[in-house]
Parts: sequence; C-alpha cells; structure tokens
Amino acid sequence: MNGAESLVHTLVDGGVDVCFANPGTSEMHFVAALDRVAGMRSILALFEGVATGAADGFARMADRPAATLLHLGPGLVNGAANLHNARKASTPMVNVVGEHATHHMRYDAPLTADIEAMAAPVSNWVHTCVNASEVAADAARAVAAASTPPGQITTLILPANTAWEDADGPAVVPAIPERSQVSADAVSTAARVLRSGEPSVLLLTGQALRGPALELAGRIANATGSRVMAQGASARIERGAGRVAVERVPFVVDQALQVLDGVQHVILVGAKPPVAFFAYPGKPSMLTPEGCQMHRLAALGDDLDHALAWLADEVGAMDTPATLHQLGRPALPSGRLDKDSIAAVLGALIPDNAIVADESVTTGRGFFALTAGAPPHSWMNNTGGSIGLGLPLATGAAVACPERKVICLSGDGSAMYTIQALWTQARENLDVTTVVFSNRSYEILLGELAKVGAGNPGRTALDMLTLRQPDLNFVQMAAGMGVAGEQVDSCESFARALGRGLDSPGPYLVEVVI
Amino acid sequence: MNGAESLVHTLVDGGVDVCFANPGTSEMHFVAALDRVAGMRSILALFEGVATGAADGFARMADRPAATLLHLGPGLVNGAANLHNARKASTPMVNVVGEHATHHMRYDAPLTADIEAMAAPVSNWVHTCVNASEVAADAARAVAAASTPPGQITTLILPANTAWEDADGPAVVPAIPERSQVSADAVSTAARVLRSGEPSVLLLTGQALRGPALELAGRIANATGSRVMAQGASARIERGAGRVAVERVPFVVDQALQVLDGVQHVILVGAKPPVAFFAYPGKPSMLTPEGCQMHRLAALGDDLDHALAWLADEVGAMDTPATLHQLGRPALPSGRLDKDSIAAVLGALIPDNAIVADESVTTGRGFFALTAGAPPHSWMNNTGGSIGLGLPLATGAAVACPERKVICLSGDGSAMYTIQALWTQARENLDVTTVVFSNRSYEILLGELAKVGAGNPGRTALDMLTLRQPDLNFVQMAAGMGVAGEQVDSCESFARALGRGLDSPGPYLVEVVI
Repeated sequence: MNGAESLVHTLVDGGVDVCFANPGTSEMHFVAALDRVAGMRSILALFEGVATGAADGFARMADRPAATLLHLGPGLVNGAANLHNARKASTPMVNVVGEHATHHMRYDAPLTADIEAMAAPVSNWVHTCVNASEVAADAARAVAAASTPPGQITTLILPANTAWEDADGPAVVPAIPERSQVSADAVSTAARVLRSGEPSVLLLTGQALRGPALELAGRIANATGSRVMAQGASARIERGAGRVAVERVPFVVDQALQVLDGVQHVILVGAKPPVAFFAYPGKPSMLTPEGCQMHRLAALGDDLDHALAWLADEVGAMDTPATLHQLGRPALPSGRLDKDSIAAVLGALIPDNAIVADESVTTGRGFFALTAGAPPHSWMNNTGGSIGLGLPLATGAAVACPERKVICLSGDGSAMYTIQALWTQARENLDVTTVVFSNRSYEILLGELAKVGAGNPGRTALDMLTLRQPDLNFVQMAAGMGVAGEQVDSCESFARALGRGLDSPGPYLVEVVI
Repeated sequence: MNGAESLVHTLVDGGVDVCFANPGTSEMHFVAALDRVAGMRSILALFEGVATGAADGFARMADRPAATLLHLGPGLVNGAANLHNARKASTPMVNVVGEHATHHMRYDAPLTADIEAMAAPVSNWVHTCVNASEVAADAARAVAAASTPPGQITTLILPANTAWEDADGPAVVPAIPERSQVSADAVSTAARVLRSGEPSVLLLTGQALRGPALELAGRIANATGSRVMAQGASARIERGAGRVAVERVPFVVDQALQVLDGVQHVILVGAKPPVAFFAYPGKPSMLTPEGCQMHRLAALGDDLDHALAWLADEVGAMDTPATLHQLGRPALPSGRLDKDSIAAVLGALIPDNAIVADESVTTGRGFFALTAGAPPHSWMNNTGGSIGLGLPLATGAAVACPERKVICLSGDGSAMYTIQALWTQARENLDVTTVVFSNRSYEILLGELAKVGAGNPGRTALDMLTLRQPDLNFVQMAAGMGVAGEQVDSCESFARALGRGLDSPGPYLVEVVI
C-alpha cells in the first residue's frame, strides 16, 4: 500500500467517501488509488471553484465532510473563494492538495508556490505531509479537525512522493469532540432578558434553524413575546409548511435598521451580531439600535438543541406551541415577470422536500414570504458573500441527497463565475433545476453605487455594471455542457419551464429574462 | 478629488491606462472615478481569472503594466492562479483590490478576509492604503514597483473609505530603476566557456528572445559552435521568417534529457536552470547531464541586449551572421487531423505579425517546427503551469495590439477554466481567433499517470482524466457569450474555418475535434 492508498482508505473508513476532484500530475497516485480502494465516489469538476463549492453543498446536506482533490497552489487558489464561503458557513471539508515531491521543491519549477500560505487564509487547519508513512495519520487528523463542531476547513498538502512511496495502512480517525453544552449563566441571562418583556430577538443560525431546535425557538418566542430571526445568510434553513417561519436580517442596511428598530436585546443562538455587509458613508456598521444589548446563549459549535431546550424550560415555554407555517401556496401568477411574480411561481411549484441553493442576489431578496407556505424544504444561502457559489452548492447537495429535488436560484452575474458546474451535473445526471435570473446586469451594484455616495453613473461606469453587449445566453451555454434548458419571459412560460425541470429526473436550466 | 479619483489620475499619468475589472460594492468609487477621470480604458471581465490573465497578456505585448480591479479577498483569489502565472513570467501588473472601510473591518462581515495574506504568495509587492491622502502616493509606488525590471506583480489594497474620502491630487510615479548591466566577470566567463569548444547552450528567455538580443545570440552561436535554446516556457518569443529559430526545452523529461545530452555548459541569459516540470520516480529533477555547468551571463532584469552585445564582441561574433529562418510555409494538408497536420495548417495560415497565445498543452508540443517559417509573429506560453491562462492572455494581447491578429490555441480542459473570456472578447470586439483542441480529455494526465508509475488506469481513474459523458460543445458555449464559431474534424474544414476566423475582424472560435 502506498501513501495515496493509505490516504483514500483512511478517508473512506472515516466516513469521507465523496471527493470532488480536479487533479493534475502531482495527484495521479491519488487518482490511481481510486481504482484500488473501494468506497470513494470521485466526481470530476472542470474548475476547482466547482469542486470546493460542491463539497460545501454536500456537507451542508449530508452533515459530514466531503473531500476535494486539488492540483498544487494554483488549483487551491482557484477553489479558494468557495473555501472562503464554506469557512464562513462552518462547513466541514477535507481538501487534499497535491504538491511537488519533497526533493523537487527546491528547483522552483513553474508550479512551485507557497501552498501553506495560500491555504491559511481560507482554512482552519493546514498540514503538509512529510513522509508516506505518516500520510494516513495526517489524513485521520484532518478528518477529525474537519468534523470538530461546528465544522472546519482542513487542508492536507500531499507531496507527490508521500503519495507514491510505501506506507503502512490506513489510520483510524480520532474521536471527534462533542458539541459543548452551554453554561447555566448563559441560559439564565437569556431567560432573564426574555422575561423582562423588553423587545428581544432570538437570532438563529446553524443547527438552530432545523428540527427540534427551531421549533423550540418558536415556543420560546411565543411564550415570551420575543421574535425569532435568522442571520442574514445561513448555511441551511429548514422551512415551509409545518415549520417555524423565520425572517432573515435584510441585506439592505435601511431595511435591516427598520426591521430591528426598537429591539433592546439580541440573544445569539449560534449567530454573530448582525452587521452590515458593507460600510456605507453615514450608515452604521451595526444593524441593531444604539444601546441594544447582545447576549450569547450559544456559540455555533455548541449543542444548540440542548441550549434551546434548557432555555425553553427556564422560561416555561415547553407547553407553549410554536407557530408553524400552514401549507399554503400562492396562486400561479400570469403576465409580466417581476420579483414578486417570480417568487409566486416558486412558491406555487417548490416540490415537497426540495433543496433550494439560493444565490439569486437582488432578484431573490423577497423570495421568503411567498415560499414560506410551500411544502417543507431546505434553503441554503451564501454565507461568505463571494458570488459563484450557487451552481456548485446545488451540485454538491444533489450528490448528498439523490432522492431530493434540488433547485438552484442564481443571478446571471453569479452563474458566470462557476458555470462549469453544469457539466458535472450532466455527467453525474444530478437532479438539479437551475434557474438563472437574467437581468443583464450586476443589478446589486447599480444600487450600491448610489448607496456609497458615488453619484449617478455615466456611460463608462455603467459599462462595468451591465452584462449587455452582448447579452449572455445561458441556454446555449448549458447545451454546450450537456444540460437542456429554455429561456422564458412571462409568468406562464416560467411556470411551464420550471415544471418541466422539476418533472425531469436530471439537470435542466431555465433562463428567466427580466 | 476623492481617493479613488486621485488613484485613477495617478495610474493614467503613470502610463497605466488599461484596467481589467470585476468590481463590487467596495470598488464603486473607483468605477465612478472612471466617468470623471479621462484616459482609463476599463474592460469588464465576468470572472477575475480573466481579468488577471488579460492584464498579463496586455503587459507581455505592450511592455507596460495594466491594472486590474478586484473585489476584496475572494475576488483576488479568483484571479490568483493567473497572478501566479504572471509572476512566473515577471509580468508588470498593478492590482487594485477593494477592501472594507477601515472602521468596518473589525465587524467580521461575510466578505472579510486577510487580503494581504492572500496577495502575498502571488505578488512581489503588497500594500494596504491607510488613508485617502496617501492613496495617490501609494499608487505611484505600486506603478514604479510593477515596472521595476524585469517586472513585478504589485497589489494595492484600497479600503472603501480611502476611496471615498477627500484626497489631494495625483502623485508622480517615482523614477523606475534601469536594467542593470552585467559584470565583466560574467561576460568573460561565458566567453571562455564558448571559446573552449565544449558543447554549450545559450539558454534564453525574456528580452533575449526578441529583436537585436535574439539576433546577437544567433551570431554568438554561429561564431562559437554553440546552440541557442529557449526556456521551456517564455513570456514571449519573437519568431518566424527572418528571425533566429529557437527550440524550447521539452516538457517531457526523457525528451529534454535527450535534447540536452552531452551539453557541458549552459549559459543562462535571463533563464533559470532547466528543471523538470514535475518529479517522476527514478528521473532527475535537473534536465542537464551530470557535471554540466551553469553560468549566469545575466539575470532576467538585467540589460540583456547589452549583455549579448558585449559577449558577441568578446567572442568576436559581431561579423558572423546569425542563421535567420527563411520564409517557408508547409503545404496545406488534407484528410485526418492529428498533431502534425494541425501544426501544418497553422504553419500555412498564421498571418504576418500575428500574436499566438499558446495553451495547447499536449496537442501543441510539436507546433514550433512547422510554424517556424511562417511570417514573423509573437508567441506566448504559460510560464507558471496553471492552466486557464490561454483565453485571457489572448484577450489582453488583443487589447494591447488592436492592429495585430491574435490566435489563441487552447486545450479543451484549459479553455474551460476561464471560458468567460469569450464574452469580454465579444464585448470589446477583439480580433482573436480561438482554436480549441477537443481531445475530450486531460490528455496530458493520461501520459503523466504512467510516468509517475501509477500503472494502467481503471475505469474510476479514467473518469477523472476524460472530458466525455457528455462531450463539451465549445461552439454552443461561445454562441452563448456572443462569439460565432464552428466545429471541424478534418484538415480541410480546419483550414477553411481558421481562414474564416482570420479573415473576420472580431472574435471567432474554431473547435477542432480530434
């Protein structure tokens, strides 16, 4: 058994059995090991940002890490923007990055780069293997580190000779730390605040947006007259009929200030204090009113179910029912497409148990209200703000959950960053319906330009914000990657096209021209 | 005048008047300044790897830096693979990377990242502006650093408030250091070696592969019985009829060892010692025979014209003519396309004064012989080994040289990394004919797998190396980005299609199915 085989064995034995790969020469022994070691599903991506974003989507839905296989420093940095996003989502992930053989590094060959330095800003854990016999143990530590709550990005750098030289055997992944239980102090502080009757928000993310934790938050809110909200972007929200509906903190600062106006206490349940995405002249960075107090009930890696159960008990909420959203779809609209009618079509058609990978940016800001009464579904957002995550995220989610329909909602600008994901969807016949909202612009920036006080854009500035001249055609691009699709420009045609995508078992693309 | 305006003014006054941009909120004041400050041509890219690769291509042809405009850390890392390539080419470049306002950084908003740490591995110079009044001076220093021979990657990080706050005015770019002159010792050592009659190679790159320097190298070779060769990959080679033909050090180790067999001295003229791209079990990292001596005549940033003139004088070569390649095109082949017949079509059709951006990987390894007699042209290779440079490089070269035809030669795997470049070519109506060689595989890796001793690939390994299931269709993808094209599968249809591309004044794509 060589080092690469000991690595793949260790990963598979440790429960990491999906790898999103874009390999090169230095990773050939890992690739060869896939033939010889059973149990690893390796999925080719044609660009590394697809691989890392897919690993993020996989882990968000599977609740366990996927691996990526990346080619030296440049392969890593091609995937680094989506590692940034995944790190902000506290996604568990094991990146395996090939490196020159140890004796070759000093020759400064073309691909030589400081991989550790490239990995550090987007990883929680970085290690370079020094010899073949330690590869298995290093990999086991990487899996354990990735799986440590709330989840970490680990990057294991594998010099080519440590892959091809003889190794012993696989290593066992060390015990993974349990989620910590919160302190009695944190619970009693939160309980005191809630009992005070002063306007309070329970701000949730992570595990608190799912299952029993979310319902407990709903009970607490009803028992104490407080509100439940989600962080501006969360890795995954369980929503729809039968679940507690949660509003997100809005992206637009003025809207966020309005939504949080009067709030005197924010109880952080895994979430971070609500801050503006960007600074704008004359606007605050903090979105809560002056004097509003932050109370941390639980950090993201804590046992949020337990924390909320304890708090519910403490405030006497265990017998108070949560308000669960009723099943109620909007009627299918007709005529012109706009943000509301698009949301209504989605609300009318999202199938039971669907997964939504949402990078719809400006078009999708209002999607929550009209989709809250759809059958139960999971909703994933971009937590790191680097666009180009949507299509890869959907790809990975579809690998994790082959029995569930995945709907990817993407802006046109966002979709162009990692459009190569469509090919992987075609190759793996993944059940993803991609909806691209073609407003032919970085529409968000047209608003941002004014908000930062940069005045009315002239022609030169506008050219940097519009995607016209020529118009992109996503249906043609998708066809070139083996994904069928169609372009629509009315509510009726959008509903028909989305229905066709949802009814077909493989990938499909709908370009919504607005 | 605000900080952003002072920055754009300073760049334009300093000769940096082209910017490849993919901006976001934090860059809006830079974008707005483009309306108010005359002289900057800003070109939108839909992915940052296109922007950085285009800036590389621009500088290689224009001999001066372009700027890029990138959105925070993730925007930078999206462009970092092509910054790696550009750094290995010693390309001058000024990256402007937006950052959160200084007062906003501590809030850990979604896009917050350690931009300096991300920039360092792919930059020669990194600086974060601390206030608006210093932005102009910082930019002037960045331009000077970028332009310092042989050329450097500079990254200027611009917090949003330093862009929008009041500044004084533009700053003047400090004097740029001259290229150094080589020492008498270096020249006399090289001369002694050449006069010894022992088998010697003049290994060239950079300025030595152009104009008078290249011809001087040819004179020296003829006068002393030595050989002239080019580094494995060089930023730009001036070649074709009337120029000294130079062979490159081959990529394949066994071929390189054979080509360099018996060589006792390598005289480095800007070049690095020839080393293998990767390490392979049982093969050397150094490509020269054991005991072969390296002699550095000149570093890449030295005055190579002067160094070669001095050496020519020292060895009495000034009156020896160089062997200049005769104009002589191969006949247009017919029938089946293979590597040789593709090379012959190129050799027959490359127009006078063309620019070739070559990332043809396996298909193109033999292109040099059959194109050496074409009319004079420039040839650019990937110096950093990170694929995804070809299409952006061609894009930037076409911006630098609007009067010259650009031919981009790309593998299918390479083209997929930065396929978004086609849209920028369409928008700017750039005169680029892109030829994609669709062998439906990472063909290079099929060879590499064997060479690293990983045995015969099974089905799982092969799946990671082939681009089939489904086949990509580059003509459809190009159409989706506004670039017309056609697919060909014979010498005749390739010649006709290439001719159509060369005859049309804008972008065109030919997919060669092999």
